[in-house]
Amino acid sequence: MNPIQLFDTESSTYTYILAAPGSDQAVIIDPVERHWERDLRHLERLNLKLAYILETHAHADHVTSAGKLREVTGAKACVPSGCGIPPADQQLSDGDVIRFGAGEEITVLHTPGHTAGSMSYLWRGNVFTGDTLLINGCGRTDFQSGSSDDLYDSVVGKLFTLPDATRMWPGHDYKDQAVSTIGWEKEHNARLAHKSKAEFAKIMSELNLPKPKLIDIAVPANQNLGLPHGA
Amino acid sequence: MNPIQLFDTESSTYTYILAAPGSDQAVIIDPVERHWERDLRHLERLNLKLAYILETHAHADHVTSAGKLREVTGAKACVPSGCGIPPADQQLSDGDVIRFGAGEEITVLHTPGHTAGSMSYLWRGNVFTGDTLLINGCGRTDFQSGSSDDLYDSVVGKLFTLPDATRMWPGHDYKDQAVSTIGWEKEHNARLAHKSKAEFAKIMSELNLPKPKLIDIAVPANQNLGLPHGA
Repeated sequence: MNPIQLFDTESSTYTYILAAPGSDQAVIIDPVERHWERDLRHLERLNLKLAYILETHAHADHVTSAGKLREVTGAKACVPSGCGIPPADQQLSDGDVIRFGAGEEITVLHTPGHTAGSMSYLWRGNVFTGDTLLINGCGRTDFQSGSSDDLYDSVVGKLFTLPDATRMWPGHDYKDQAVSTIGWEKEHNARLAHKSKAEFAKIMSELNLPKPKLIDIAVPANQNLGLPHGA
Repeated sequence: MNPIQLFDTESSTYTYILAAPGSDQAVIIDPVERHWERDLRHLERLNLKLAYILETHAHADHVTSAGKLREVTGAKACVPSGCGIPPADQQLSDGDVIRFGAGEEITVLHTPGHTAGSMSYLWRGNVFTGDTLLINGCGRTDFQSGSSDDLYDSVVGKLFTLPDATRMWPGHDYKDQAVSTIGWEKEHNARLAHKSKAEFAKIMSELNLPKPKLIDIAVPANQNLGLPHGA
């Protein structure tokens, strides 16, 4: 049961719509502000009603449409409890289960490292890893309470213990890739497969990435579900 | 059971990988030459073996990787019988069924109009319509034995008789849209919903589209499965 995967070319962000037979309820993960109408059109065409909007973390590179989609659809916005997003309907913790449709369950996994609050979501053999684990890579760990030690523990100690066949759907991809599996990443991920925590910390410390252009706008906006402050 | 949907930004072409639980066999529809390695990487990461390569028609805007993928994977290349692609392993006709994996069936639907040979493929409540039916639009009908009358009959007389909930996966999209349903297109498609054959013919005759840049290269190449002639 694959999700519907949608892409934002500006920030290379993946948004996911989860739906399953037997119900018209759907969940959206990491929707992007400038695509809120596109995403609504998909729900309309597929005859789906939005039940939940999930954020994997407070993004630094794009603004979420969570607040807008909540306003238009009445869906509940659920966010990681450690991300400082007070206007959400639900603050998620590790092990929480989100139920929708006819018996669908999404399990919440706390996977800190890219940010301290980052969550992954597990649904029907699919894991949505946000910026924690990317295809053959991972999110950066040098801002927003990021920690290479925490990211290592989240990936190696938690995500890599999922069944090998689990399909891994990342929050971004910059190389035209769409999906991977836990088994493949465990064996081949360039930063994390067969690496010690110290080796991984060294890789991450030497990345020297520039500051994300939008971070000073995007993070405060996302901590308000993408709505203007005061709105 | 959604397919895995992959995109080519140069030609706005969608490629699809079809896989289902219970087997490691997969089918790919309309793969693009410049992405053959990307597509192989997806198969590798998902631990899938390619059984069939399907073409919806002889494309005019991009070159297929069907020949290359056949060479590398040993999969069978299946093409519409009316598209003049002699080196294929199988020439498909309306009503043919392609079987793969653990009981998976793909039904072949002849849907001429964009080209005389164009086929759509039906799998588990999904229809892959190539350039016959696009989201809120359709393929052009002014070259390669195209016919607006035939396209009207293919869409209104055939595709629109599928169940409303059938998910419609197009061969292209130019507006960031990924998927639709037969029910939505039947009610809302700007060119075809609630239109007579004469009204549709008028719309198509007034499009005045430029000749596709690659047509003189792409069509002969695709009639050889994307391989150099003489290879």
